[in-house]
Amino acid sequence: MKTEEIDARIAGILPLDEASMEAARQRLDRLTKPPGSLGKLEEIAVQLAGIASETILDLGSKAVIVMAGDHGVCAEGVSAFPAEVTPQMVLNFLNGGAAVNVLARQAGAEVVCVDIGVNADLDHPGLYARKVRRGTGNIAREAAMTREEAVQAIRTGIRLVDELAEQGCGIFATGEMGIGNTTPSAALFSAFTGRDPGEIVGLGTGIDEAGLRRKVDAVRRALAVNAPDAADPLDVLSKLGGLEIAGLAGVILGAAVRRRPVVIDGFISSAAALAAVRIAPAAGAYLIASHLSQEQGHALLLQELGLKPLIHLDMRLGEGTGAALCLPIIEASLQIMSGMATFESAGVSTSHQAGREARA
Amino acid sequence: MKTEEIDARIAGILPLDEASMEAARQRLDRLTKPPGSLGKLEEIAVQLAGIASETILDLGSKAVIVMAGDHGVCAEGVSAFPAEVTPQMVLNFLNGGAAVNVLARQAGAEVVCVDIGVNADLDHPGLYARKVRRGTGNIAREAAMTREEAVQAIRTGIRLVDELAEQGCGIFATGEMGIGNTTPSAALFSAFTGRDPGEIVGLGTGIDEAGLRRKVDAVRRALAVNAPDAADPLDVLSKLGGLEIAGLAGVILGAAVRRRPVVIDGFISSAAALAAVRIAPAAGAYLIASHLSQEQGHALLLQELGLKPLIHLDMRLGEGTGAALCLPIIEASLQIMSGMATFESAGVSTSHQAGREARA
Repeated sequence: MKTEEIDARIAGILPLDEASMEAARQRLDRLTKPPGSLGKLEEIAVQLAGIASETILDLGSKAVIVMAGDHGVCAEGVSAFPAEVTPQMVLNFLNGGAAVNVLARQAGAEVVCVDIGVNADLDHPGLYARKVRRGTGNIAREAAMTREEAVQAIRTGIRLVDELAEQGCGIFATGEMGIGNTTPSAALFSAFTGRDPGEIVGLGTGIDEAGLRRKVDAVRRALAVNAPDAADPLDVLSKLGGLEIAGLAGVILGAAVRRRPVVIDGFISSAAALAAVRIAPAAGAYLIASHLSQEQGHALLLQELGLKPLIHLDMRLGEGTGAALCLPIIEASLQIMSGMATFESAGVSTSHQAGREARA
Repeated sequence: MKTEEIDARIAGILPLDEASMEAARQRLDRLTKPPGSLGKLEEIAVQLAGIASETILDLGSKAVIVMAGDHGVCAEGVSAFPAEVTPQMVLNFLNGGAAVNVLARQAGAEVVCVDIGVNADLDHPGLYARKVRRGTGNIAREAAMTREEAVQAIRTGIRLVDELAEQGCGIFATGEMGIGNTTPSAALFSAFTGRDPGEIVGLGTGIDEAGLRRKVDAVRRALAVNAPDAADPLDVLSKLGGLEIAGLAGVILGAAVRRRPVVIDGFISSAAALAAVRIAPAAGAYLIASHLSQEQGHALLLQELGLKPLIHLDMRLGEGTGAALCLPIIEASLQIMSGMATFESAGVSTSHQAGREARA
């Protein structure tokens, strides 16, 4: 597998359309509210205008892409749940019983469940079967995957976005399932930024103190054994990542290529976003952060990405649950643009006019 | 107007049903997710179970109650907008063109627009015409209203909730319109807590530095001139409040009486909530905070109420916009309770089982 296809696609990621963003700002200031008083709703409306090159837009259908993969590092005792839960939860997603199904349904979004690296044979008519390999290597002892496999996982994400975009999907939310995957996420964050693992490794799905020590130790060993080159994002991602993390990096790159917004979920999705923007910095403008996870390193990771979360619900589940919860807020920003009256149309006095009247 | 009717009603506010809350917690821990991993969504589900005495419930229809009133203190130059904007915005609400209309529509909620104290004659088939008086007195020089008028405004809120609850409404969001109303809100907050006005007076809809100084001064004079008795909530509310603020305090009390949750919006709604819980502390258990406003004193006011906001969107508009945006999140907490699979039904291994297997 060569990287040329990916290189060619990401070379096509454009900056946001400044003229459309300025037109959106001007429209927002004519609407019946004090300028800027809708805060981040206005910022998102401007960002979406820049992404789509339109001030009033309809995003079309919505997809929460849940990529699933297993992690060899589970052998180090880094998770509160056994690895068998990954395929079990994939079936739960496919049967509609997981939290992300409930929240996506409520947001009117489709859950797109992708086996990109589960260490089990899965068969279900609703499954996107795109397995690159059965789980990663144990990063505490070896590389997670080969460079070719990382490229294949990224390409899988990009192509999935192509496919969904062609079916009318206009906004993507990232989600994941992979028992053990906060460990490679912390390793990626540490390798890309030089932050100490002790500062960014968290409790995941709820490990105890001894487990936390094993997890920090596993990340330290992963960094030492693999010696990733921080200047080579593919090297970092292939040595320390997960298949679902590389796949989500591809989803993010693909969304930017197709000029669609992508809503990122918690710590693992944010690690995928960090990998994506290290591969293609221009992709950062297409990101919308959703929630602030309780996972220890998430606030720092969002800070590294330059993003601020919209909701603070103390969640730590992953799956795309935080991203799904934010879809209605993002849609609200579009409704504001299209549905509100202007000061002129509603006959409402503006602050500025009041000033003029006062001076008259 | 006597206070007996209000006293009799608020005496009926019950604490939350602990047995239903415990049943809700037990159900949440059987669902396919790490215990507690949905954070505040789980807390809200438990609270709603305690409010409704049911673990799986349907709230019925939703109302954003927008109460409008004018403020004599506008004469002190405390707002960036002229007072004429209050009736203009009421008409905008009634015509569906304001931000709260857009956000309520998206949340599937009705906007209930109430004239409880606008200083203008309003006539519209959609208006709830419940005027107690035409605007308040200028609190920097006199009492906002009489004690009887405050009681009437509270009773108006309680009765409105009765009326809407009988039509099937199961959740209320508070909103308001009243040019100048961050000033009485700050005065109430200061009078109830002893906090210095300089710490809690903010920019409102966007006043300049000189306006901010006038506003702090107006609050200081209001406190000095009226000398409210902090131990007598009706005294504080009638001397310093607004008609829409007293009306919203009534909505909050009425929701607690009827055992319905009430979602509070920003600074002004939170001031109404503070007045309500000073009148009837048991009402506090029925409150759900929505967003953290950019208005300076809001974080402190929520802290005083013991509430944590769900969304952080840097908004400062009022009208009920933040509360409306949170309605889908609150509904999501109910969907989680009713729509998710259990570990058992989905055949997913639990963390605890993993521990047993590891020991076996």
